[in-house]
Amino acid sequence: MAFEKVKRSDNYSEWYNNLVKDADLAEHAAVKGCMIIKPYGYAIWEKMQQQLDKMFKETGHSNAYFPLLIPKSFFEKEEKNAAGFAKECAVVTHYRLKVDENRKIIVDPEAKLEEELIIRPTSEAIIWNTYRSWIQSYRDLPILLNQWANVMRWEMRTRLFLRTSEFLWQEGHTAHATSEEALIETKQMLDIYAEFAETFLGVPVVKGVKTPNETFAGAIETYCIEGLMQDGKALQMGTSHFLGQNFAKAFDVKFQTKEGKLEYVWATSWGVSTRLMGALIMAHSDDEGLVLPPNLAPHQIVIVPIYRTDEEKENVETAAKEIKKKLEANNISVKLDNRDTHKPGFKFAEWELKGVPLRIGIGPRDIQNGTVELARRDTKEKSITSIDGIENTAKVLLNDIQTSIFNRAKVFRDNNIREVNTWEEFQKVLEEKAGFISAHWDGTDITEEKIKQLTKATIRCIPINNPQEEGKCILTGNPSKQRVLFAKAY
Amino acid sequence: MAFEKVKRSDNYSEWYNNLVKDADLAEHAAVKGCMIIKPYGYAIWEKMQQQLDKMFKETGHSNAYFPLLIPKSFFEKEEKNAAGFAKECAVVTHYRLKVDENRKIIVDPEAKLEEELIIRPTSEAIIWNTYRSWIQSYRDLPILLNQWANVMRWEMRTRLFLRTSEFLWQEGHTAHATSEEALIETKQMLDIYAEFAETFLGVPVVKGVKTPNETFAGAIETYCIEGLMQDGKALQMGTSHFLGQNFAKAFDVKFQTKEGKLEYVWATSWGVSTRLMGALIMAHSDDEGLVLPPNLAPHQIVIVPIYRTDEEKENVETAAKEIKKKLEANNISVKLDNRDTHKPGFKFAEWELKGVPLRIGIGPRDIQNGTVELARRDTKEKSITSIDGIENTAKVLLNDIQTSIFNRAKVFRDNNIREVNTWEEFQKVLEEKAGFISAHWDGTDITEEKIKQLTKATIRCIPINNPQEEGKCILTGNPSKQRVLFAKAY
Repeated sequence: MAFEKVKRSDNYSEWYNNLVKDADLAEHAAVKGCMIIKPYGYAIWEKMQQQLDKMFKETGHSNAYFPLLIPKSFFEKEEKNAAGFAKECAVVTHYRLKVDENRKIIVDPEAKLEEELIIRPTSEAIIWNTYRSWIQSYRDLPILLNQWANVMRWEMRTRLFLRTSEFLWQEGHTAHATSEEALIETKQMLDIYAEFAETFLGVPVVKGVKTPNETFAGAIETYCIEGLMQDGKALQMGTSHFLGQNFAKAFDVKFQTKEGKLEYVWATSWGVSTRLMGALIMAHSDDEGLVLPPNLAPHQIVIVPIYRTDEEKENVETAAKEIKKKLEANNISVKLDNRDTHKPGFKFAEWELKGVPLRIGIGPRDIQNGTVELARRDTKEKSITSIDGIENTAKVLLNDIQTSIFNRAKVFRDNNIREVNTWEEFQKVLEEKAGFISAHWDGTDITEEKIKQLTKATIRCIPINNPQEEGKCILTGNPSKQRVLFAKAY
Repeated sequence: MAFEKVKRSDNYSEWYNNLVKDADLAEHAAVKGCMIIKPYGYAIWEKMQQQLDKMFKETGHSNAYFPLLIPKSFFEKEEKNAAGFAKECAVVTHYRLKVDENRKIIVDPEAKLEEELIIRPTSEAIIWNTYRSWIQSYRDLPILLNQWANVMRWEMRTRLFLRTSEFLWQEGHTAHATSEEALIETKQMLDIYAEFAETFLGVPVVKGVKTPNETFAGAIETYCIEGLMQDGKALQMGTSHFLGQNFAKAFDVKFQTKEGKLEYVWATSWGVSTRLMGALIMAHSDDEGLVLPPNLAPHQIVIVPIYRTDEEKENVETAAKEIKKKLEANNISVKLDNRDTHKPGFKFAEWELKGVPLRIGIGPRDIQNGTVELARRDTKEKSITSIDGIENTAKVLLNDIQTSIFNRAKVFRDNNIREVNTWEEFQKVLEEKAGFISAHWDGTDITEEKIKQLTKATIRCIPINNPQEEGKCILTGNPSKQRVLFAKAY
């Protein structure tokens, strides 16, 4: 359990790796680049799934499931999409093993596939190939589907949750009769992601559009939400793509309009992944461990009984159970840690490491006084509070923690968006402070690429409702009509 | 939508295929052997998942996630398990594609993996390789994990839901300090599956143990639940394996006991899959379409408004919305089908095809009378009932439908377990009536295999608490101590 005491200020990256491991969230698998999501980490992911799924369904989406494997010939139909993902594709070439004469298991050379199959890096190809037979008329539209699935993008350099070869995600794939409707959908899903990030993860995000260079392979426009981590690096937390008619054309998906004309269908796709776990960890946690927002914490409260004698134990546990019951009746999730094998001090440290928002300590003297000790994980403030009415105290505190976590992250983020007007300043800010830099850019791929090569900073997005402002490109001095947001990013 | 009118009695298999397609449950994917689960089918699967997940958590299990890909060297460690699945394994050999000089996408020959990776057909290997580092002491036990995942077992002959190369399932993998504890777990999970099958799917099941021949590759004992479909064929609906120390030995997973000794860990694994969708469809549906048990129906009630004029429409829809609200306030899921594009008769047929347990028809005259027409899907009985108190009427009816569906299936099942004592009778019953046959067997693999070759009937299980009864083997005449259950099976 012991959280290896590397501080964020010492080595942020090592701090992150240790925390993911020590808080029992995930670990590297024996398969290169893949991860094992441990029960505590998975419980947080499940809470994310439940909430997102609810929001998708409230906006008219249904879940479905499409195959893991994509024939290579489908995959190459949308050229840009294929070229964009080709370098990261795991390829299935055989469908059978056999036991050889030495009783070793070998790949059966006679079971070679005629056509190789790709493990989905994303499912536009297989889904649009299917939509062709589902869509004939405007009456079949819109189609509003989502799937929860695993995908694979082969990575050489991996980091748990942030970049792994296999990851879990949801991918929405919608089909529409008009461009306008598809654009409304694209933006609606971006808004849902932003709302989820801010209200549940407690991470403030910038909504924006990607530059052509950073647009999803196969999309017309990619919308994104960008968060800022405590080390001043940005993290892309979700994307929503307006695909235009690209996939409809690649897969020949046409529909008959009300007027009887035959037109290509308009598309969107949108996704968030287990990467959000990385955002959650990096945005809030501190040198003692995780800090979980109550809206996503598997246990919102942990109760640690404190006693010496058997008699004390019985009394304290009885009282603890009553408190648990009261809290649960108010829809608060509570863990009563009555393990005999560990001392209270150990438990305090463990639940601190695991980020439980509120801790209740209760001992014999507390019972006499009708009180307990409440400790907040986020501020580490402690208070003595009455057992009577504790469910209300807890509710107020949990709400306050959720808000405080968000506000703290928002202050940090807002303090770390800097307007910069010269190339020298740009380099200096990047070096010394990181964060978002709002600066002028001449709008060309070449300049964007050059800045990336020189500084590792990328254009995170062109914020939505960006004020138009004449200026000069930070690198080339060429005219620019608006500032864009740069940052080093995960 | 039109359900192609092949009756069960004409061609059961064609009836099933049509129904899966026409009720919008699933379809074959372009990838050989794989399926696309459509939104309506997936909504039923989600209901199954939610309920099972609840039952797993109530018995102390947590969810986690392990990688999709298994290195071949791990896979071969448990020899029997490897041999059992080797012939069905999809193999990843390359991790990159590239665009060649003709702008075609090809597999990059330079991106060949040093060691091939297997797409998991089941996850014992990868999980027990992981448990080695998770388990040191008896304090680390038990481990009670489950994962919801996709798996792949290459199939040449596939049928939607019943047998597909990729399918969705849950797989529980637990680790215990003693053999007794692992056996209790194995049986507990079997009981949970049986309870789920009977209470939610409405399918009565026989609980039993598989013969050595049919035991899971790598298990000591395989427990199963077996259901009977309307065509008299059996369907294995879930299995729970007592793995002994086989995987602990293969992956060297030892723990220190309380007494300080080093011992191998005991294991179980258990799973149910999207195959349960096949059971649900085949056990209850009729020539008009699906018959869904209310406990798993995405919509428990559909309301179809009936009107001619715009004024009628407004009144009827207002009343329908009020009824919907009342029902939903009582936790009944309701679909109001107010599509303008289709006539009531069409809607009636569509929801019958889709198996919605209760249909409410409401027209202008109904409103005057303060009544609606209620139609049960299972018995097709119709009744006029008062709008006042409809939530109670509906609840009673839904409960009654759930019970009736189960009872009907149980009567059918019970009537189709036949005791048979001669080989001639055995063949005749199989030919003419199918169903389960309770008969004596001499306990040898050879006889079991011979019966299978001669009749296609297999031993489905040795029922739990099977009465001991001296007798003679149906085929060989050799002595037998108990009857076992034979059937032709999916």
